Amino acid sequence: MTGTTELAELIEALPPGCVITDPDGMAGYRWDRARDPGAGVPLAVVRATSTEDVQAVMRYAAAHHVPVVPRGAGTGLSGGASAVEGCIVLSTERMRRIEVDPATRTCVVEPGLLNAEVKGAVAEHGLWYPPDPSSYEICSIGGNIATNAGGLCCVKYGVTTDYVLGLTVVLADGTAVELGGPRLKDVAGLSLTKLFVGSEGTLGVITRVVLRLLPQPRPPHTLVASFPSLAAATSTVVAVTRAMRPSMLELMDRASINAVEDHARMGLDRDAEALLVIQSDESPSTAAEEVARIAATCEQNGASEVFATDDPAEGASFVAARRMVIPAVERRGSLLLEDVGVPVPQLGALVDGIARIAAEREVEIPVIAHAGDGNTHPLVVFDPTDAAHTARAEAAYDEIMRLAIGLGGTITGEHGVGRLKRPWLGDYLGPDALALNRRIKAALDPDGILNPGALL
Amino acid sequence: MTGTTELAELIEALPPGCVITDPDGMAGYRWDRARDPGAGVPLAVVRATSTEDVQAVMRYAAAHHVPVVPRGAGTGLSGGASAVEGCIVLSTERMRRIEVDPATRTCVVEPGLLNAEVKGAVAEHGLWYPPDPSSYEICSIGGNIATNAGGLCCVKYGVTTDYVLGLTVVLADGTAVELGGPRLKDVAGLSLTKLFVGSEGTLGVITRVVLRLLPQPRPPHTLVASFPSLAAATSTVVAVTRAMRPSMLELMDRASINAVEDHARMGLDRDAEALLVIQSDESPSTAAEEVARIAATCEQNGASEVFATDDPAEGASFVAARRMVIPAVERRGSLLLEDVGVPVPQLGALVDGIARIAAEREVEIPVIAHAGDGNTHPLVVFDPTDAAHTARAEAAYDEIMRLAIGLGGTITGEHGVGRLKRPWLGDYLGPDALALNRRIKAALDPDGILNPGALL
Repeated sequence: MTGTTELAELIEALPPGCVITDPDGMAGYRWDRARDPGAGVPLAVVRATSTEDVQAVMRYAAAHHVPVVPRGAGTGLSGGASAVEGCIVLSTERMRRIEVDPATRTCVVEPGLLNAEVKGAVAEHGLWYPPDPSSYEICSIGGNIATNAGGLCCVKYGVTTDYVLGLTVVLADGTAVELGGPRLKDVAGLSLTKLFVGSEGTLGVITRVVLRLLPQPRPPHTLVASFPSLAAATSTVVAVTRAMRPSMLELMDRASINAVEDHARMGLDRDAEALLVIQSDESPSTAAEEVARIAATCEQNGASEVFATDDPAEGASFVAARRMVIPAVERRGSLLLEDVGVPVPQLGALVDGIARIAAEREVEIPVIAHAGDGNTHPLVVFDPTDAAHTARAEAAYDEIMRLAIGLGGTITGEHGVGRLKRPWLGDYLGPDALALNRRIKAALDPDGILNPGALL
Repeated sequence: MTGTTELAELIEALPPGCVITDPDGMAGYRWDRARDPGAGVPLAVVRATSTEDVQAVMRYAAAHHVPVVPRGAGTGLSGGASAVEGCIVLSTERMRRIEVDPATRTCVVEPGLLNAEVKGAVAEHGLWYPPDPSSYEICSIGGNIATNAGGLCCVKYGVTTDYVLGLTVVLADGTAVELGGPRLKDVAGLSLTKLFVGSEGTLGVITRVVLRLLPQPRPPHTLVASFPSLAAATSTVVAVTRAMRPSMLELMDRASINAVEDHARMGLDRDAEALLVIQSDESPSTAAEEVARIAATCEQNGASEVFATDDPAEGASFVAARRMVIPAVERRGSLLLEDVGVPVPQLGALVDGIARIAAEREVEIPVIAHAGDGNTHPLVVFDPTDAAHTARAEAAYDEIMRLAIGLGGTITGEHGVGRLKRPWLGDYLGPDALALNRRIKAALDPDGILNPGALL
């Protein structure tokens, strides 16, 4: 550990104004959106402006054995950016340059740019960066890479790692390594770019990213279907995904629908047990055919109402309703935001099991899902001032992860393990895979200074 | 090293008939298609039948410090499966089970099944495994995973790693680890599945793979365009890929065209300097539009002839011509088969540079390319009985890789580093990325028994 006198060495190694040490200034950097109550007080916050700044921080941290918690926009939901006592919080929020190369359909971007800003910058060139976490307007691209973030588009377009062609990473000892680049195929050497994606700041600090881009998608056709039972909705999901590739396939359960309707009248069917919002971005005639085929599948599986539109704005209003669920449910209490995923055919068993857990534990657990890839977000609502209620919510949170593991699923589909889910990681991975994770961590960060306590 | 007496221990640990030790029986396992003249004589060949067999081999190898060379179908082009002196060649050719799950659109497959057999088995369920190396009829899926193989579809559908959701891997000490599974999103733990893809048998032996599948693609529309210059063809490639997503975009140069015509009259234009074969697998009306737009782009860039067809069989004959180049050129001599890739806008500079090298070194170097992703296969033809000619071919091989590196490209886009390209890996990666590769290797295989001499 390090005293204030030695901090002078860090301050001198960085451009003026990079280091924050007063408690008020540091307060905003102690937590991410998981609001981890165990967050520590940092020694300092560094707002890096370049790869060189990040190298200076890591060299200092290595020399003085100070833990470093890398941080993007602080929108993580698993506590991956919670400060640990006496750490340096290393924020990349000021690293915001982007260069778009339409000829290679790639861009080179620094980690602090927001996902929405990346989308905006490439759209000016007629290009598209698909990954779209619900938080895309406030989350950083660096955080997206660090967590291998998902979103609504994944069912057709895959997750963040599928778009990462190259990285610059600063290692625990301050070495900056360039991996990959704007080449669509490259098998020279181990797949290290992919190893750093989703490593949650435990192996290195990402300072520069090369992203693969697609041409802008076509305006989608949208279908909204109401179901009298969750089983009818989940069997529809299985029937659709086995044969078709919709560009979105989202599920809201009754509690989610009603939370949205309470919050903003969207005209959703409050009596439905489940709602599916499905889009196709094929060419107009094909999209119309695909939507008609999906509508027929919904009806065969017992949908009570099916509505389709080729008006992108009308479609977007249903997507907005879906995106509104978390803020709407947040008005009902504090949330333990789950992120379990299962193979698609197990979706019905998962949502049934969650309903059973909610009833047994007497907690409200609205469920939304990126249904097409089996990734659900049960929202465990609780009153943090009520210790017994909080304990029941925590028990439900635990039981949902164990349920998912039992169904062949994962404890986290897109949010990351962070600090909140670490207690369950070993049960999910098993001892051999956990040991393998630790061997990689030990090889790259032998002193354990990179984001200690997160992921592993 | 180990004597014959100790081999009894290995033979006893395996089912009857797994171990080959007679020189004639082992001869077919010493080389892959790179025909590495430095291939050693194995101690034994093991034809494993299960994960347990592979574990038994690795435990034996670890105990006796015997190197192990994992081997799929032996179709590798970089010498990644060349035997080393005194090694165990561990063949997975007998591990051929597959289970297809249409509900999750995944399959679980053992490494010995051929790529074409995987495609065939999943097609019975209306599903599609996209990656399609030119050797797809003879290469194994395990080898594809080990090299992160590419193919013709990559320009739209990505490479092997994009389809690998899970692996069972046997580590150097014989531990079998299950990584990932049939979940489309899973961020619990480090991205170890992706790390093993493309690791060329240097980190572990793959014994089971979970693959993501797509619905069967639509029949393609095909466009063939002849160009009076390579520059006209490569500028067409850049113009097409910046705005569109064809499902195939292949290039043949004049020497390739003529090699095919010499071998089998396909009616290709022998006077063209370059030919592009382009497909669209959009819905029929959209494919027709896309092909018309690509045809216009070809003409704007100076194509001398453009031919389009919506007849899949007619289209397939042009793809067959493209696939025929390597066997056709092989009739002209021995080949040093290159695999360099560059960012797409550098494709013109690369093919120009290759022509210059061919002229300077007085060797014939026909070029084919997966042009849409900048991945080229210059085929350096030489007479192995002519030492001077062979030396000039080897010099050209070296110069092509240096040219690619200088253009921001890679020394291997899809074949792997193996043993043939290892001398260039350090120059490509640079010392820091090379050191990082070595740290990972040392962490997972500290005694260096897994495929020593390959990749690293």
